[in-house]
Amino acid sequence: MFLRTAALLGFVMTASTSFGDEGMWLYNNLPKAHLKEKYGFEPTQEWLDNLQKSSVRFNSGGSGSFVSPDGLVLTNHHVGADDLQKLSTPEKDLLKTGYYAKTRDQELKCKALELNVLQSIKDVTAEVNAAVPMGAAAADAFKARQAKIAAIEKDGATDKTTRADVVTLYAGGAYHLYTFKKYTDIRLVFAPEKAIAFFGGDPDNFEYPRYDLDCCFFRVYENDAPVKSANYLKWSPSGAVDGELTFVSGHPGRTNRQQTIAELEYLRDVGYPALLQRLNRLEVLLGAWVGRSEANRQNGEDELFGIQNSRKARIGGLGGLQDPKLMARKIAEEAALRKFIETATPTTPEEKATLEAAKAAFETIAKAEKVRRAMNRDLTLLEQGAAFNSSYFRIARTLVRAAEEKSKPAGERFREFGEARLPSLEQQLFSDEPHYDDFELLKLADSLSLMASTLGMDDALVKQVLAGKSPKDRAFELISGTRVKDIAARKTLYEEGKSAVDGSADPMIALAKLVDPAARALRKRYETEVEEPKRQAYSALAKARFMKDGTNTYPDATFSLRLSFGPIKGFKDAGKDIPAFTTFEGLYARSAEQGNKYPFKLPERWVEKKASLDLKTPLNFVSTADIIGGNSGSPVVNKQGEVVGLIFDGNIQSLVLDFIYDDVESRAVSVDSRAIIEALQKVYDASELVTELRGK
Amino acid sequence: MFLRTAALLGFVMTASTSFGDEGMWLYNNLPKAHLKEKYGFEPTQEWLDNLQKSSVRFNSGGSGSFVSPDGLVLTNHHVGADDLQKLSTPEKDLLKTGYYAKTRDQELKCKALELNVLQSIKDVTAEVNAAVPMGAAAADAFKARQAKIAAIEKDGATDKTTRADVVTLYAGGAYHLYTFKKYTDIRLVFAPEKAIAFFGGDPDNFEYPRYDLDCCFFRVYENDAPVKSANYLKWSPSGAVDGELTFVSGHPGRTNRQQTIAELEYLRDVGYPALLQRLNRLEVLLGAWVGRSEANRQNGEDELFGIQNSRKARIGGLGGLQDPKLMARKIAEEAALRKFIETATPTTPEEKATLEAAKAAFETIAKAEKVRRAMNRDLTLLEQGAAFNSSYFRIARTLVRAAEEKSKPAGERFREFGEARLPSLEQQLFSDEPHYDDFELLKLADSLSLMASTLGMDDALVKQVLAGKSPKDRAFELISGTRVKDIAARKTLYEEGKSAVDGSADPMIALAKLVDPAARALRKRYETEVEEPKRQAYSALAKARFMKDGTNTYPDATFSLRLSFGPIKGFKDAGKDIPAFTTFEGLYARSAEQGNKYPFKLPERWVEKKASLDLKTPLNFVSTADIIGGNSGSPVVNKQGEVVGLIFDGNIQSLVLDFIYDDVESRAVSVDSRAIIEALQKVYDASELVTELRGK
Repeated sequence: MFLRTAALLGFVMTASTSFGDEGMWLYNNLPKAHLKEKYGFEPTQEWLDNLQKSSVRFNSGGSGSFVSPDGLVLTNHHVGADDLQKLSTPEKDLLKTGYYAKTRDQELKCKALELNVLQSIKDVTAEVNAAVPMGAAAADAFKARQAKIAAIEKDGATDKTTRADVVTLYAGGAYHLYTFKKYTDIRLVFAPEKAIAFFGGDPDNFEYPRYDLDCCFFRVYENDAPVKSANYLKWSPSGAVDGELTFVSGHPGRTNRQQTIAELEYLRDVGYPALLQRLNRLEVLLGAWVGRSEANRQNGEDELFGIQNSRKARIGGLGGLQDPKLMARKIAEEAALRKFIETATPTTPEEKATLEAAKAAFETIAKAEKVRRAMNRDLTLLEQGAAFNSSYFRIARTLVRAAEEKSKPAGERFREFGEARLPSLEQQLFSDEPHYDDFELLKLADSLSLMASTLGMDDALVKQVLAGKSPKDRAFELISGTRVKDIAARKTLYEEGKSAVDGSADPMIALAKLVDPAARALRKRYETEVEEPKRQAYSALAKARFMKDGTNTYPDATFSLRLSFGPIKGFKDAGKDIPAFTTFEGLYARSAEQGNKYPFKLPERWVEKKASLDLKTPLNFVSTADIIGGNSGSPVVNKQGEVVGLIFDGNIQSLVLDFIYDDVESRAVSVDSRAIIEALQKVYDASELVTELRGK
Repeated sequence: MFLRTAALLGFVMTASTSFGDEGMWLYNNLPKAHLKEKYGFEPTQEWLDNLQKSSVRFNSGGSGSFVSPDGLVLTNHHVGADDLQKLSTPEKDLLKTGYYAKTRDQELKCKALELNVLQSIKDVTAEVNAAVPMGAAAADAFKARQAKIAAIEKDGATDKTTRADVVTLYAGGAYHLYTFKKYTDIRLVFAPEKAIAFFGGDPDNFEYPRYDLDCCFFRVYENDAPVKSANYLKWSPSGAVDGELTFVSGHPGRTNRQQTIAELEYLRDVGYPALLQRLNRLEVLLGAWVGRSEANRQNGEDELFGIQNSRKARIGGLGGLQDPKLMARKIAEEAALRKFIETATPTTPEEKATLEAAKAAFETIAKAEKVRRAMNRDLTLLEQGAAFNSSYFRIARTLVRAAEEKSKPAGERFREFGEARLPSLEQQLFSDEPHYDDFELLKLADSLSLMASTLGMDDALVKQVLAGKSPKDRAFELISGTRVKDIAARKTLYEEGKSAVDGSADPMIALAKLVDPAARALRKRYETEVEEPKRQAYSALAKARFMKDGTNTYPDATFSLRLSFGPIKGFKDAGKDIPAFTTFEGLYARSAEQGNKYPFKLPERWVEKKASLDLKTPLNFVSTADIIGGNSGSPVVNKQGEVVGLIFDGNIQSLVLDFIYDDVESRAVSVDSRAIIEALQKVYDASELVTELRGK
């Protein structure tokens, strides 16, 4: 399944010329001419408004939509899975059993879920740019911009039900203030068993044909009553057919389509291979441990799955980067842009400045990528914590840094310690999420061993970190000795601040203090020599690209609302035709050919109810829509704006969409709306929910 | 389980001072004083002779023993597993079902299994040394020695039932000609299901407590009749007790206890981490693929398990190398030897020469390790074939090299093309072992991608290898286009030789030719700048060590017959006491706590027969005996020379035994002889076999 989208997003850029049905389009800049010309379709403003205001962003990193006037929200099971886990008890595992609230009073309130619905967009580009002094050094420019953005967001959030995010578009070519209606009382209505939502598990993940009922329903409440959602999507009575044009409205997390060849080469040669090496190591470590006992499985399976999912995604991406056909397209794109920059005749002083800045930009980025090549290893180990892979270390570091950062003015702090972000940082720091010493020991011992292998046993910091012990013995000492596993102890250290941290004898706190100077130095160098120069260079390129292509483009994904589209369409894989639709019949056949064994084992009620199901019901389908992680849970609608499907994945070939759109083999994967109705009726006896979806 | 021992062995050295019950002792140089003093035990020559001539070497890489006067041989299931697979048919999978021949005529003849029983040892050190001219260059010395050894082995094998191996002992301080009685008609008598032989699979592999019935019985035939084995081991009627002294007679494959600190640091910093990286990558690749379908599982599971097994073994070894306590012992050992070399007063010109050679040896080894650090990456990729991980490539390379090597004089060929080795090379090359294109594609595409990531897409050889395609597309072209998958095509190319190979348009042959110059250059550099200088340096150190310690030492393991010993004894793991014995009761409990799921699922008959079993019967036990891979299948005997157990593994802590003996946590793991009898009687109704074991 798609990687969940992290809240903190990186560089973002504009796309140039489109390719087929390419594009994650802004709602206020849709390719209307293309839609009209190619598909004879002209959406009305009402059609667009309803789709926009029916679209829901899950702040946990996914998308969804209102599908009834009573606040019912449709999303993926894997988007809701965190909440299902939090609502579970040792006696009642909702991921295992699924859940259905037949009546409103049975709907279960989620613990810390926030949904956002986009209400308005305001351009704040001038305001943000004005805050950065002309000719400011990179580090100062970064700081000034961050401070301004934080201030705008604070002003924009006028009350407790409003959320305001400044979204960086066109690589800093534009800054838009997105204002959302914010909902925090979200209740679980229906979830199937994980075994059917994620049927096929890791083996079938990112593959197609696929057979997953990856759906989940929540209801939004306000003042303890279901919210009356004026905007919602109607359910299609008949579903979609092969070749039919469909639309996807959701929040693609991040794409990198404007990265220069220098950056793509960095990713191809260093970034992805190094990450895959670490993911492989963790997958093997956790896989072996999880197999040792049922308790291990329960404690480690989710983390293992996350690793496997990332691994598949990166392999797909690396496959694209190593494909000369795709790279040739990127190279041609860059050459065209370079040529434009070198040959265009500016008509204003602004255009002249833009072209001059853009001329230097390629070299700036190449230089930044060189720095990144040189420091990636140490940054990953020390600042990103690959050398100290334990929740206890992460807690200890947060406490050590909080003591220092909180005493600084807001604008000078690390981003995550900004005033606006402190509440969520504290929520996480003091959460009662359970940790298991044996699991922490496993991961910390392995990561200390990795550090020793990577930096060498004679490295001064390695020697200090290991303190004369083997990685395993040292990890045992740290894990068994630290008190940060106790929430009260964390609170004391956090509240008493620097003197308490400095005076602490806790071995994990001591370790976090020991590595912090080196880690901070790396982060600072990365921010000033890589991040900020690239931000400025990409911004310059983005402006030049505007000159070249005008506004007939879409910006790279930024976890802001977008519209994509494309027909339902199969594809060819190694010479074999893969049809667009799968069915319930295929689901049962796949389970049988795998001996009905995990992760192909069907929940008991699916076995019992087989006879009552219409086995020809379409279960999943693929389309050419341009989507990416963050789109998980997006509604797929037809020209009438009715729900015909639910995005939940891309095929493995689609993982190149991070860099470049492709409609030859890349496909978006959806649950068919008909499968949801058929399953709710025949397998789950959820007639109340079906009635609500169909409209009374 | 232990890694199987490769036939081709590397450097071998002597050990100095012993530690506890350390030692894999030569039969003609046993620590009799230690045994007498510590255990009051004095073995008679008859006791020793019987144990020696009852010990059997499996040329597939394991140990065994005669346990009846009618040629019955006991070994591990995992030693016999290859043969079980070869004896299986699509309809009858002996690994799954197990096998029992109630009568002689049901015993199944193995396809290419050879057993050796040591008859005599002759010192040929002088002869081998005389063949190397004084002051010869490294490469010439290597060649001259190899030629002499080949000649001695050829002369020693006087008839078809005799096998002669020159064994390098004390790192070239001594060369002994081992003459074996060779048996080639071996028949399967009994094997349990793999599910009980390897109960717990990868998760429990190398762990303790353990619950495996890892045993298997063969019978040796000559002239179509069971051989009358004059020497065999009696079965103990009562088994052994906690604390009892036991002996292990078997063929430890290889230890590296005399490696210098420079070499250990190479392994710790480069060798093991790089190997583990590759193993992790392969484990993840194969694991994901095997999960995709039942056919994949059947075709890939064995290879996957081999990788997992290696991975666990290397992690254990690396853990030891990264442990300052163990390294401090190695450093102290080396310091003592260095001091001796620097301060000893020679009494003869030979001793003077020995000390002088030894003085330079540490530096020579350090230099060789530096070369190895520099070339390990390329050697692994190109010569060891990590960049071309496909059986078809290995076949193509063998054909390409055979065309060249066979035209050279015997002494100048690559070792594996020596006259004596050609028959086994041809047997492998023309074997009808099945290969599966989809599996070959998976592995080749991944390894080409690894090559591109490691050497860079702009590397000249990478460009030639990929020929403008993505790794996946190029692999598809090679796998679908090659004809070496056809045995007849292989034979033609092999027989027609160089002109046929040169004229071949086969894409895989072309690839093998393309990379051969670079691969050969790396191999040559490795042999002349690493292998040979180290061989000479370790030989000099071994001689110095002789001067220092006399003959009261044991040589490093060389897959030659050794005797180890030690009491049955539990150990502590992370503060927890682990008892020495497990029982059938524990087996059923472990299966239940894992939900009776694979790899903890018991064979049906074990479930059915549970009530009839004495659940208190000991199943596995641990002892402090000094063993290593190759010892798999070794008998464990008591002071009366009776079988009380069967070695099948070491715990994960024992994987440091490659470098250094430890009796604090390291343990040898055995099947208890009583479990074998109880299972044969109560679960398998194998009363005939029980009668034979107990003696008529």
